[in-house]
Amino acid sequence: MAKVGVLLSGLGHSDGSDIQETVLVVHYLSQAGAEVVFLAPDEIQQEVIDHHTGKLTDERRNILVESARIAGPKIKVVDQVNPSELDALIIPGGLGVVKNLCDFLSAGENCRVNEQVRHLVGSMVRGKRPVGVLSMAAVLLARVLKSRKGITPTLTVGSDAGMAGKIQAMGAIHVSTKMDEALIDDQNRLISTPASLSGTGIGQMAQGIKNLVRGTLEFVHKGVNHAGS
Amino acid sequence: MAKVGVLLSGLGHSDGSDIQETVLVVHYLSQAGAEVVFLAPDEIQQEVIDHHTGKLTDERRNILVESARIAGPKIKVVDQVNPSELDALIIPGGLGVVKNLCDFLSAGENCRVNEQVRHLVGSMVRGKRPVGVLSMAAVLLARVLKSRKGITPTLTVGSDAGMAGKIQAMGAIHVSTKMDEALIDDQNRLISTPASLSGTGIGQMAQGIKNLVRGTLEFVHKGVNHAGS
Repeated sequence: MAKVGVLLSGLGHSDGSDIQETVLVVHYLSQAGAEVVFLAPDEIQQEVIDHHTGKLTDERRNILVESARIAGPKIKVVDQVNPSELDALIIPGGLGVVKNLCDFLSAGENCRVNEQVRHLVGSMVRGKRPVGVLSMAAVLLARVLKSRKGITPTLTVGSDAGMAGKIQAMGAIHVSTKMDEALIDDQNRLISTPASLSGTGIGQMAQGIKNLVRGTLEFVHKGVNHAGS
Repeated sequence: MAKVGVLLSGLGHSDGSDIQETVLVVHYLSQAGAEVVFLAPDEIQQEVIDHHTGKLTDERRNILVESARIAGPKIKVVDQVNPSELDALIIPGGLGVVKNLCDFLSAGENCRVNEQVRHLVGSMVRGKRPVGVLSMAAVLLARVLKSRKGITPTLTVGSDAGMAGKIQAMGAIHVSTKMDEALIDDQNRLISTPASLSGTGIGQMAQGIKNLVRGTLEFVHKGVNHAGS
């Protein structure tokens, strides 16, 4: 059974993980018989947004505790899991990725990445273990892999030229895709799909997420020894 | 296009709506081309549970605001929607249903139901508009319909004898079902499925939820005039 890490950044599109993306990832992983290992940093969120009004609040919430609302009590702190235990990693989008896992939203392309997250993601890619990213999580992946010798990731965030430019500014190749597509980077075993960035709602993005999960698990079943073949 | 209300009770299994149930309902409704109208009471939650430790916290959160994390900013307060605008209503489970929409968890079978929720659910059933309930939401429906003249609902919460007994104590007929089944009460146009109460995880409950959504929409397409035929 494939063991797949799902890295969360809180709970809710505007300050955490996108909920629809996260549940659909888990749904398709479960349908394929994969075991899910939820992960999140045990740190305070950068901010808390009222999702009804869209306004900033003065609340303080913990990324791990909020992520547990979807993941359940078995969720692990990122550094409690050795990357070599995981067959693959999937990172749902939502603004939490660029607020809590890195500070891209405020700092841009030279943003700082959470140290545990940087280590996990870097180890997975170096070990030729597949990494799947949804919507904004492509930005995080591009940042972690920026200037890594011998790695030029090919990623998608859909068809938004501004976002694509930011991905490219971090040294990645951007390929435009439709909402129902997942882009496969065979060389680096990366899979990406625009998901909620396509702005089209759950019905349209579900197919892209299904394709992302399938692409991720296909890499797992090919095995590490066949990387690049 | 069928217009289906989805009534939320917060966000998170232990003090709000079950997140996986909610997203799967929306996913299957969307696949069927239905329009979703999210609803929640604009009131303070009964309590806030830390979903990582399982412990009660001293936080205060608003049911509508937390529900908006999954529903988005267009979510409506329950009494902002006239029940006659909706073709159907679906209520996801989670303990928020028996903490925030009614106080069944503390008060038992004679519990008090939120007045706006009681009006909405009662109006739907009286108008022969289908109502679908997942897991704990069957308890809320049984309570609203308790002692209503001419209505004896047939519902399921799966195969748990204790929970089934409580449903029966409120005057409903309980039928045991498996996790992947949805029970149809043709007479009253009610649909129920055990979902997360089956305790089997997202993979197994997804089929039951898919069947619940299909059963609900089949009633919509049959139309009100054919009720009971």
